[in-house]
Amino acid sequence: MSKDSLTKLTSKLKDFAVRRDWEQFHSPKNLAMALSGEAGELLEHFQWLTEQQSQQIEANKKQEVAYEMADILIYLLRLSERLDIDLVAAAYEKMAINEERYPADKVKGDFRRAEEYE
Amino acid sequence: MSKDSLTKLTSKLKDFAVRRDWEQFHSPKNLAMALSGEAGELLEHFQWLTEQQSQQIEANKKQEVAYEMADILIYLLRLSERLDIDLVAAAYEKMAINEERYPADKVKGDFRRAEEYE
Amino acid sequence: MSKDSLTKLTSKLKDFAVRRDWEQFHSPKNLAMALSGEAGELLEHFQWLTEQQSQQIEANKKQEVAYEMADILIYLLRLSERLDIDLVAAAYEKMAINEERYPADKVKGDFRRAEEYE
Amino acid sequence: MSKDSLTKLTSKLKDFAVRRDWEQFHSPKNLAMALSGEAGELLEHFQWLTEQQSQQIEANKKQEVAYEMADILIYLLRLSERLDIDLVAAAYEKMAINEERYPADKVKGDFRRAEEYE
Repeated sequence: MSKDSLTKLTSKLKDFAVRRDWEQFHSPKNLAMALSGEAGELLEHFQWLTEQQSQQIEANKKQEVAYEMADILIYLLRLSERLDIDLVAAAYEKMAINEERYPADKVKGDFRRAEEYE
Repeated sequence: MSKDSLTKLTSKLKDFAVRRDWEQFHSPKNLAMALSGEAGELLEHFQWLTEQQSQQIEANKKQEVAYEMADILIYLLRLSERLDIDLVAAAYEKMAINEERYPADKVKGDFRRAEEYE
Repeated sequence: MSKDSLTKLTSKLKDFAVRRDWEQFHSPKNLAMALSGEAGELLEHFQWLTEQQSQQIEANKKQEVAYEMADILIYLLRLSERLDIDLVAAAYEKMAINEERYPADKVKGDFRRAEEYE
Repeated sequence: MSKDSLTKLTSKLKDFAVRRDWEQFHSPKNLAMALSGEAGELLEHFQWLTEQQSQQIEANKKQEVAYEMADILIYLLRLSERLDIDLVAAAYEKMAINEERYPADKVKGDFRRAEEYE
């Protein structure tokens, strides 16, 4: 990860946990659970909305959604630090894989997953 | 979001979707579902491991975990772009809130959530 | 839970785990993770479908969805057995609470959650 | 599904939704999201507990856990009704599949998933 916003944030998050003696709770297993719990909270904001409504949420709800997304990022960065995973590098690798699996001319406008093509 | 790795990644992800005519599927509602689905896959890697084992996964599993985390970051960035949310700024705001809710001297070594203190 | 289909299923699931010496992995924490992982797999079947398409899935996909739902029920029953919770009784209690929180004449056709009314 | 507790519960849940004019929101897609949101809430009760602590939660927390599990069952039954899926039959079919995939003498005490054996 380059020396930029994510690096700084990751380091601040570690410091936050250390000052509270919370690193003992931050096993990868527990952090994956916490991340998934926050993903569930994110879902709850959208579950009864139409797709169109989900694009036009009002300011209050948008603020809450932003904080759920922040929580997800926070646990994602904590987990990457605990497992020594370079998150941005992994994202670029995954994008390269997806370029191969979903050639633009083949999948254009098609929503199926790669395993559903054959 | 500062002009750095996340900004570049967000822009490349948008381009990836546009070239496949996939933006039509990327409503905030659908992206929240996709993110939560990936969080579920992340969980599956850790569900039968002890906390200690989850800290010491071997290289193959770590690679798979890195890709699940990459998928989560990818959907998180797509969602932030669709809703025009500055993810890193939101994370700093959320950390400031957490500093207030969980004063280091009060919660040291205690894992309860804020609402469980009273 | 009345002596019926769920009771029988719960008992068969326990037997399945005992014969494999898997009860050691079936802590409530781990079962909650496994359940949530399956819920994530369920999501993946629907994430790019419109709501209308989700009501009209074809036979193959319906079979897969049925198995994901079966997995969720399986972990739910295992968890209820480990924690000695009467799942059906809890569902009736929760419905009674919901009758109070969401009076039919007040919420008719409105999708907001109780905490969003004020 | 046999004519028993689940059948009755499913019918009462449908009635609850119809009286509120909520069936319009209960597409399979939306119900899968709601179920997954509740699974996330279940996780949150266990995320910082050790496995042993998760087996010994006190009465208050157990009541809350029971209600989260009730919510999951409720959405699972609503979804089975919308898709006309016999949930208990699917669970027995899935168990038969699992008996084949995980022969008791081969997997005894081993937590790996079927695809991790080779």
